[in-house]
Amino acid sequence: MKKSNSNYALLYERERNKVNKKLAVALKNRKPESLYKPSDYILSNSGKRLRPILVLFSAKASNGNMNSVFNAALSVEMLHNFTLIHDDIMDNADLRRGKKTLHKLYDLNTAILAGDSLLSVAYEYLLKDCKVNAREAVSAFTEGLIEVCEGQSLDTDFEKRNDVSLDEYIVMIKKKTAALAKMCCKLGAILSDAKQSDIKALSDYGLNLGIAFQIQDDLLDIIGEEKDFGKTVGGDLIAGKKTFLVIKALEKAKGEYKKELLKMIKNKGIKPEKVNYFKQMFINLGVVEDAKKEIRKFTEKALRSIDRLSNKNEISFFYWLADSLIERNK
Amino acid sequence: MKKSNSNYALLYERERNKVNKKLAVALKNRKPESLYKPSDYILSNSGKRLRPILVLFSAKASNGNMNSVFNAALSVEMLHNFTLIHDDIMDNADLRRGKKTLHKLYDLNTAILAGDSLLSVAYEYLLKDCKVNAREAVSAFTEGLIEVCEGQSLDTDFEKRNDVSLDEYIVMIKKKTAALAKMCCKLGAILSDAKQSDIKALSDYGLNLGIAFQIQDDLLDIIGEEKDFGKTVGGDLIAGKKTFLVIKALEKAKGEYKKELLKMIKNKGIKPEKVNYFKQMFINLGVVEDAKKEIRKFTEKALRSIDRLSNKNEISFFYWLADSLIERNK
Repeated sequence: MKKSNSNYALLYERERNKVNKKLAVALKNRKPESLYKPSDYILSNSGKRLRPILVLFSAKASNGNMNSVFNAALSVEMLHNFTLIHDDIMDNADLRRGKKTLHKLYDLNTAILAGDSLLSVAYEYLLKDCKVNAREAVSAFTEGLIEVCEGQSLDTDFEKRNDVSLDEYIVMIKKKTAALAKMCCKLGAILSDAKQSDIKALSDYGLNLGIAFQIQDDLLDIIGEEKDFGKTVGGDLIAGKKTFLVIKALEKAKGEYKKELLKMIKNKGIKPEKVNYFKQMFINLGVVEDAKKEIRKFTEKALRSIDRLSNKNEISFFYWLADSLIERNK
Repeated sequence: MKKSNSNYALLYERERNKVNKKLAVALKNRKPESLYKPSDYILSNSGKRLRPILVLFSAKASNGNMNSVFNAALSVEMLHNFTLIHDDIMDNADLRRGKKTLHKLYDLNTAILAGDSLLSVAYEYLLKDCKVNAREAVSAFTEGLIEVCEGQSLDTDFEKRNDVSLDEYIVMIKKKTAALAKMCCKLGAILSDAKQSDIKALSDYGLNLGIAFQIQDDLLDIIGEEKDFGKTVGGDLIAGKKTFLVIKALEKAKGEYKKELLKMIKNKGIKPEKVNYFKQMFINLGVVEDAKKEIRKFTEKALRSIDRLSNKNEISFFYWLADSLIERNK
């Protein structure tokens, strides 16, 4: 029985609200307050909660019970937020979703330790739901964590280089972003004792969706609207990040465009007033279209993976989810 | 058959060398190098490797096999080194065991990420040995990690306070130091499928040994010899740390001593040339003796715990270990 799209949106929203409610109280009574209050502030943001949703619906798709993996779903959001806290320090970012970053609201030491501690609590939450396949589940979680660290390191390496290829870029975002989405799907399946072929179908879906998601993020930095996006449009350009669009533009550009791109890299970023110039350049070079094509390519790979799921009734939710992520404006 | 003390020292040294050899290659072929080389530098120090030793001998004491928990033994040393990397950032320390700290050798971002990544690899190593009781083993490991974070946070809180009681101090070092020693013993036992009473006997041994160990560390800061100790004698005083001796001295001091102690706290430390004055003060106030008494008290508690171990042949190693830690000069 195929549900209509608006039903899926409601289902997503219902679970998202539950995740928000549980995250809002997860750290409330833990002591010392000096440790848990900062993490609590971070967990109380209003994100998409995409990662816990992937855990929950992967469990359902594996004929499991969403409630049996709810703590695991919270754990991946905690892990994700741990990475945000430490990434924001490394990027020296002032704001995240319009709110002060932790090291700006408190200080460096508080933010480092809050991140570490949030990761430790993430494992604690994961373990609550490890009634079957504990070793496999914790391994999948740990592998995701390892890849996120490796991806972050590659990203930092790329900042110092002028010759990053598109292939290298894809490897980096696979690790930095997509490995976590893959892990979420895998985790929901493993904890529901799914068979290997379903674990693989869901994992591959998560991985390819994650890649598409990150390129979409790169694209939204250019074509997003400030009010929807919640971050400064062109923020990646201003910070000198080597996004999909920048790398692709470097491949294609000649003359003045090439000069401007190389200048951006040399200066490690551009002035805010130049964002529109770069936006126009990316349109003219066709790299906005290239990005859209790449997003479609990886989305289609994700859909081909999920087609292999044995429980055919559950496939359409994942189609809807992929579609709504491509259509998103934030 | 009771082995002689020199045999135990040889046994310790043999396992310590194996640990060193395995740690030296653990990260060698991992990529990206920018991530793993810094952690490799930290793992290649020449520490006591007390924590892995506790895992190995707890497994042996539980009629298990040391080789079956060797990766778990490496994992606790990785966890320990993760805490050192991040603690050194928070303490703004330049040196650790005479070598540059990671954030000084590289930079802040590299050190934060190297720490995170070392923790993730620690879980990976732990999981290699989780053939039985995986959930219990990972839970014990995670609980240890959570307590270390909480202890570090309490330690930071104490820096801002003038009224830390001895009881609060003991709670703090239980979490910051002793919880990890407890976890090591527990882990070795759990992974060897020990019975509950043996897990408890070994855990309590580790906890109390850990407390004694930390007070001993506080004491060595005052009465240690520079050449043995490997750190600046009086370093804790210079940094204004509220050690066992400082807290106890604050309880006992009057007149000039009280004034000097309060000045130290107000100024967040003393000048190096005042270390000898404080050393003499601590001797005169009897707090050096108090510390020694407290170390004996917790060591005896540790020994009473290990007396409950069902395999009586294995007890004497733990006696020797406790004894050699009390007698240590570094």
